[in-house]
Parts: sequence; C-alpha cells; structure tokens
Amino acid sequence: MLLGEINNKKEQVLEMLEQTLSEVYTKFKIHFYQEMFKKLNSRETSLTTVELFCVEIIHALKNPTVAEFANFINVSSPNAAYKVNSLIQKGYIEKVQSETDRREYHLHVTDKYYNYFNLSQKYVSTVVERAQEHFSAEQIEILDGILRDMSLELMHEVVIPPVEVN
Amino acid sequence: MLLGEINNKKEQVLEMLEQTLSEVYTKFKIHFYQEMFKKLNSRETSLTTVELFCVEIIHALKNPTVAEFANFINVSSPNAAYKVNSLIQKGYIEKVQSETDRREYHLHVTDKYYNYFNLSQKYVSTVVERAQEHFSAEQIEILDGILRDMSLELMHEVVIPPVEVN
Repeated sequence: MLLGEINNKKEQVLEMLEQTLSEVYTKFKIHFYQEMFKKLNSRETSLTTVELFCVEIIHALKNPTVAEFANFINVSSPNAAYKVNSLIQKGYIEKVQSETDRREYHLHVTDKYYNYFNLSQKYVSTVVERAQEHFSAEQIEILDGILRDMSLELMHEVVIPPVEVN
Repeated sequence: MLLGEINNKKEQVLEMLEQTLSEVYTKFKIHFYQEMFKKLNSRETSLTTVELFCVEIIHALKNPTVAEFANFINVSSPNAAYKVNSLIQKGYIEKVQSETDRREYHLHVTDKYYNYFNLSQKYVSTVVERAQEHFSAEQIEILDGILRDMSLELMHEVVIPPVEVN
C-alpha cells in the first residue's frame, strides 16, 4: 500500500471507532435512564439537572470537601455550599466531620444516592459478565489494556480518583 | 497452567475490565458535566432530571412519535405528552408533522438541545483523535471490533437506532 492509502485506511477506521465508542457510551447512558424511569417517583423528579450533575460529581470525587467540590466545578464556595445544602436537604448526600482534622467536613453520598444512581454501574457489571462468555481471555486482556491506556493517557482533562467497583 | 488457574486468571482480568470500562464511562460522563457547568445559566437549571433523561432519549431514538417515546420509557401516552409539552415549552424539542402521513407528528430536538447537550459527543471525538496518535492502526481496529461486538451482542436491552456522529 502507498502511504496515502495507509493514512486513508487509518482515517476510516478512526471514524468507525468514533461511531462505535459513541454507541457503547450512549447505550450505557440510555439504559441508565430507562432503569431510572422504573424507579423514579414524583418526589425524585424534584431533583434539577444541576443537582444530578453535582451528586454524580461528588460521588466520583470520593468524599471531597466543599472547597474541593467547588474547585472541581469551578464555582464560588458560597455557590457550591448552596448546591450542597440543597442535596443534603433532599437526602442524597451528608456532611461528615473528618477524623483527622475536626475543622474539616467531607461530603459523602447516602444510601438514597446508591439506591437511585448506582444503576449504571450494575449494567457495566452485566455487560462484563456477558463478555466472559463471548470473548476469549486474550481479547478481554487486549480490550482492558487499550481502554486503560485511553483512560490514563488520553482523558487527562478529567482528574478523578480511580473508579471503585463494588 | 491448570484449568483452575486459567479460570482464576480470567476472573481477575474480568474484574480489571469492569473497573476499566467503568472508569472510561465515568470520565466521559464527568467531563460532560464539567462542560455543562461552564455553559449553564440560571434559565437552564429549570430543567428537571426527568426532562434531561427525556430529551436525551428522544435524541437517541431519532425523531420518534410521542407513542414510540411513551412506549420506550414505558409510561402512559398522556404522561409522555405532558413531558413532551414541557420540553417543547422550554425549547429543547419541537413537533414536526410527518411528510408521508399528515396525521403523524415526530419529535425533533432543536438547536438549543445541540448547543447544550452535544458536548459529550465532542469529547468522544477529541479522545478518538488522540487515539490516532497514541495507538497503532491494528490496535484501533481491534478495539473497534471488540466494542462493536459488545454493542451489538451484549447490550440487547437497549434498542436504539445506530448512533450518528456528525
């Protein structure tokens, strides 16, 4: 193959990958929404979009302080405190005093959060279980390696602690 | 290796994959939230979580009728119509009369939707562009193949049209 043809081929494969990656991401997201619809009652519909984003970010940051959370979403401390209080009132998070520094408080998500929002994690588990039957051990290892590289090397805008699987 | 050891190894790799897949998924999600915070103003905070889910589902279903949308989220037609009207009022979707059957109306997302919610698609593009530099053509082809299989064979709960990349 000429160099031009090789580059052309690579571009086509990249376009396919963009499509495929979007599709897997979208399917995880839409499945989560479908499961949420089964669970939601009128009380939960009071959560605004911003509150949803906030509680998911607090979960991803693993017990941040209000200051750390404010810094991550790039808003002022009073603004962040306002969002935090509203989520505390609705029962999705709580403030826990630090055991090492009594002046410090950390934000923890509650069981109510896990009850409603951990559904997406469950579907990842389901798909991975099915992968065990469908793919060879070698394929799974290759997939894991490439995705790990993608997460660590190509997504540096998102600075969060390692994601925990329970 | 003994069979027990092989199975043990496979389980470890699967656990790793669950962790890695969760991590990539979470990073895409959290990046989307961070970008949203930059864009959101007080007007947009009026969107409830359920409305967010609805507009994303309508986008994924590609111009469904109200009945198709109601069926997908498994709610009654009047309930779906209520959610649809609220999203029309807020400017995220519009009803468009079908050209083939004048009695039929399809739901289309608006530019306002794309302006606010298409940020996650952009980050997928960014990561895939970086993948071009980071991975070999062969690695990209393998990744694409495995993810495609995952989407088509292992995620059958989520029945949506192919995801379009613009």
